[in-house]
Amino acid sequence: MKQSTPPIEGVRIVLGDRSYDIDIGSALLAGLAAHKALPSGTAALIVTNDTVQPLYEKALVEALAGRYPVVHTVALPDGEEHKNWQTLNLIFDALLTHGCDRKVVLYALGGGVIGDMTGFAAACYMRGVPFVQVPTTLLAQVDSSVGGKTAINHPLGKNMIGAFYQPRLVVCDLATLDTLPARELAAGLAEVIKYGPIADMELFGWLEEHMDALLARERQALAHAVRRSCEIKAAVVGADEREAGLRAILNFGHTFGHAIEAGMGYGVWLHGEGVAAGMVMAAELSRRLGLVDEAFTQRLTRLIARAGLPTRGPVLDAQDNAGRYLELMRVDKKAEGGEIRFVLIDGPGKAIMRTAPDALVREVIAQCCAAA
Amino acid sequence: MKQSTPPIEGVRIVLGDRSYDIDIGSALLAGLAAHKALPSGTAALIVTNDTVQPLYEKALVEALAGRYPVVHTVALPDGEEHKNWQTLNLIFDALLTHGCDRKVVLYALGGGVIGDMTGFAAACYMRGVPFVQVPTTLLAQVDSSVGGKTAINHPLGKNMIGAFYQPRLVVCDLATLDTLPARELAAGLAEVIKYGPIADMELFGWLEEHMDALLARERQALAHAVRRSCEIKAAVVGADEREAGLRAILNFGHTFGHAIEAGMGYGVWLHGEGVAAGMVMAAELSRRLGLVDEAFTQRLTRLIARAGLPTRGPVLDAQDNAGRYLELMRVDKKAEGGEIRFVLIDGPGKAIMRTAPDALVREVIAQCCAAA
Repeated sequence: MKQSTPPIEGVRIVLGDRSYDIDIGSALLAGLAAHKALPSGTAALIVTNDTVQPLYEKALVEALAGRYPVVHTVALPDGEEHKNWQTLNLIFDALLTHGCDRKVVLYALGGGVIGDMTGFAAACYMRGVPFVQVPTTLLAQVDSSVGGKTAINHPLGKNMIGAFYQPRLVVCDLATLDTLPARELAAGLAEVIKYGPIADMELFGWLEEHMDALLARERQALAHAVRRSCEIKAAVVGADEREAGLRAILNFGHTFGHAIEAGMGYGVWLHGEGVAAGMVMAAELSRRLGLVDEAFTQRLTRLIARAGLPTRGPVLDAQDNAGRYLELMRVDKKAEGGEIRFVLIDGPGKAIMRTAPDALVREVIAQCCAAA
Repeated sequence: MKQSTPPIEGVRIVLGDRSYDIDIGSALLAGLAAHKALPSGTAALIVTNDTVQPLYEKALVEALAGRYPVVHTVALPDGEEHKNWQTLNLIFDALLTHGCDRKVVLYALGGGVIGDMTGFAAACYMRGVPFVQVPTTLLAQVDSSVGGKTAINHPLGKNMIGAFYQPRLVVCDLATLDTLPARELAAGLAEVIKYGPIADMELFGWLEEHMDALLARERQALAHAVRRSCEIKAAVVGADEREAGLRAILNFGHTFGHAIEAGMGYGVWLHGEGVAAGMVMAAELSRRLGLVDEAFTQRLTRLIARAGLPTRGPVLDAQDNAGRYLELMRVDKKAEGGEIRFVLIDGPGKAIMRTAPDALVREVIAQCCAAA
């Protein structure tokens, strides 16, 4: 694929002494050795998975070799179903087996699962060591590697055990997206689409125009989508790092989406796929509450479909599907006192948090699930 | 035992918006319901162990019943050997099974192990919920419940996985010490004694005079020991919350002590017992480096012995005991680049951090271990 090379762009996350840059560009891995923001240390540990390791480990090891006395790697099994304590412990095992001290720097080389686990391991190892995000999936570049949310799953709920812990730097090398499977590219687009309804309908319009270019992985289009997504996320995280309020809007589609992921078994639906179907459901709930019109829900559904993403949720329970969704959603981290707090769209481009009557939610689930 | 009741005393930990009080007094549990600093919430979860549960759970449940819509309890197996991920996960299981949301408040009712695990669970559950320390051992009252260090052990090292996470309140009810086994009372005295050499030889002199009263559990003496210990710890933690420097002096005796605990298998030696023998070793290393004289090391050894604590370390390896100690100490969190950084006494009442030649450390271990 012939590509024009976009220049390196930067977005800054402003959080006092925890501020950091997101670099966006092509072939950044090769230039990383000279980067001023790399934390110094006695050793580096690259955390990756067995899919990404053969593709990019060598380039990152070479880049870091000049900066650290020693560079180790640990490769975890790939997939959301491995985002648990047992896999996290492989990172601690590697750190302790190699005798890594408090001056070790962790590098997360992979997608959202690797980023979330590496960040949480960095937050906990010896009560905190620095880490750098090197996201190699679109989803991680536009969402999960930015903002310091780290976590692992518990069998009873997604991301239930974790920490707010900021990286020192995020390096989004667009060249790494060339090797991304089409299904994962689409899953990443779900999080890009998300930023439209909650914050920026201009981005949404741009996505409607450039969806084909994005699916063809044109660098200039990808660079714009990543940059704009990171800018919106930076503004939200900068205003509310620990999700006291505003930040929760970034979870549009995620309440239904997490239920889908947990209900199907982690790894069966990709996170972005759950979010895609979840956004359609949340939009429909917004419509039934009189917050948006049908033209909006249709427009959103159409764009999600064009990205190659599911627009309907799966049936989680043949007997009482809505009941199962509700049960799973009640353990969502945004729930309070058993009440589910949904992120809804209050007119295109603006998100709000609110509860909804169970009966209405049941109607939405009945309407929006596969076998309905 | 007839007791005069000391008044409630308070020590404040000053850490900006993470500041909190340590209350010290008798029969505080009963009065807890009216305490202004209890965080509000949708539920409380008392985390305790199977030894403490039959003694104090009822009183705490009654105190909290008026403050929370629902009060749950989870009892963990008792002992340092259970301070691991599997046991920690019992807390998460309880939280999720009870449908606890972000507004849950955790109560640590027990000793240092319960406090460390409850604090770490609070730090991680849904990325952070409030918690209160209700320490029921002397060790927890004078040391581990104060300052926000939380952690679990890894088979390759003690407290390797954890977080700096402050409680909202610490309630030291001296009445709970009445039921403490003599061996654990002594283990707590090790941490009280520690504050002398590193910071306050006046306290050390007071301990020499009042050791019998402390061993007899006289409330006035206990109140003074707990308050003075907390004051010293508050000053150190207030100056260096995240152990960038000064705070490490609180680990006097702990480098050798952690090696003893890990080398013997967690739970064989109590933490305070390891620290006691470790302080003798660290003092002897200080003497060999010319930092203190023999009169000081003898005075320290004598007070430790009077508290009923071990003054000699165990043999961890019959072939190469010093080698095994060194191996275990190299994974200490204070180590850097493979160099062990010892907390040493630079004249009574003043601690410093420094490295020491392996040969000298070997001599100290040979001199200070049981079979030497």
